[in-house]
Amino acid sequence: MERTSFAEMRCSLARALELVGDWWTPLVLRDLFIGVKRFDALAEDLGVSRNLLTRRLKALEDHGVIQRRAYQERPRRYEYGLTEAGRDLVPILIALTAWGDRWAQPEQGAPILFRHKACGCGFQPRIVCSACGKPFGADDVTPMPGPGGAALPGTKVVARLLAGSGQMGE
Amino acid sequence: MERTSFAEMRCSLARALELVGDWWTPLVLRDLFIGVKRFDALAEDLGVSRNLLTRRLKALEDHGVIQRRAYQERPRRYEYGLTEAGRDLVPILIALTAWGDRWAQPEQGAPILFRHKACGCGFQPRIVCSACGKPFGADDVTPMPGPGGAALPGTKVVARLLAGSGQMGE
Repeated sequence: MERTSFAEMRCSLARALELVGDWWTPLVLRDLFIGVKRFDALAEDLGVSRNLLTRRLKALEDHGVIQRRAYQERPRRYEYGLTEAGRDLVPILIALTAWGDRWAQPEQGAPILFRHKACGCGFQPRIVCSACGKPFGADDVTPMPGPGGAALPGTKVVARLLAGSGQMGE
Repeated sequence: MERTSFAEMRCSLARALELVGDWWTPLVLRDLFIGVKRFDALAEDLGVSRNLLTRRLKALEDHGVIQRRAYQERPRRYEYGLTEAGRDLVPILIALTAWGDRWAQPEQGAPILFRHKACGCGFQPRIVCSACGKPFGADDVTPMPGPGGAALPGTKVVARLLAGSGQMGE
């Protein structure tokens, strides 16, 4: 599947993946969130080639997920930070990290813990319904066609399935 | 970066990404959640080559995220479904979809909406603190070193940074 097709898909999950890029990109966002912000430190932390990291940082910047600013002039050096869109991804990255703790944890235990500053507690992320505040699982959710849906590549069957579900306009 | 290294990384986000695989794999999980479960329908929906889809489904099955069962014997045909680990990813996929709605929505609007069966409402996913129940943002969270942390590839700098943050053992 060519990457270029994702940006046009009528699926916000696909479009989100297009912005976030390839599969190790979330680790770049993790590092920026934790405070590893400079090119050399990112390259060392992730063990990724400088060429690849340069391309990936550029793509994230172009997509509005990260921004860079010069912290030194001679030679000019940059550090990176999350934009508002990037920061909005952090709770999702933490939720995915917690999933990794549940399903792929090293035997020594969770590598990273999180504390909620507001309440002072170590915590787990919970994903809840905005309407009733209760957690929901896969069985508790009905997907429905939205106004931007279309049977285009990436949702060819999904859009038909949703359109036929009779749950629109209720 | 070679894929094999992710499974050994001392980071549950990296390990989660290893299990979920490459960047279009979440769309396979989306399809299984929505009800597109058969090989031909998945290939048509995603516009992905059959070879690539076969390999990806096998990897997801090996990683315990999906399972398959025969629904027809002659010729033998399979359909796929989410395992418990896969189903546990669904709220996270919905949260990432909502992020895509916010930051990469097609001009026509959200392609897919979700209804919470328990309360009957269309809803947005909210990620909240398990301790106090309040939503949190990137600024509200302090990452701390956990028992499984180590300065190995993928967390070489992160682990040192967390270890030096003095937030352990409080």
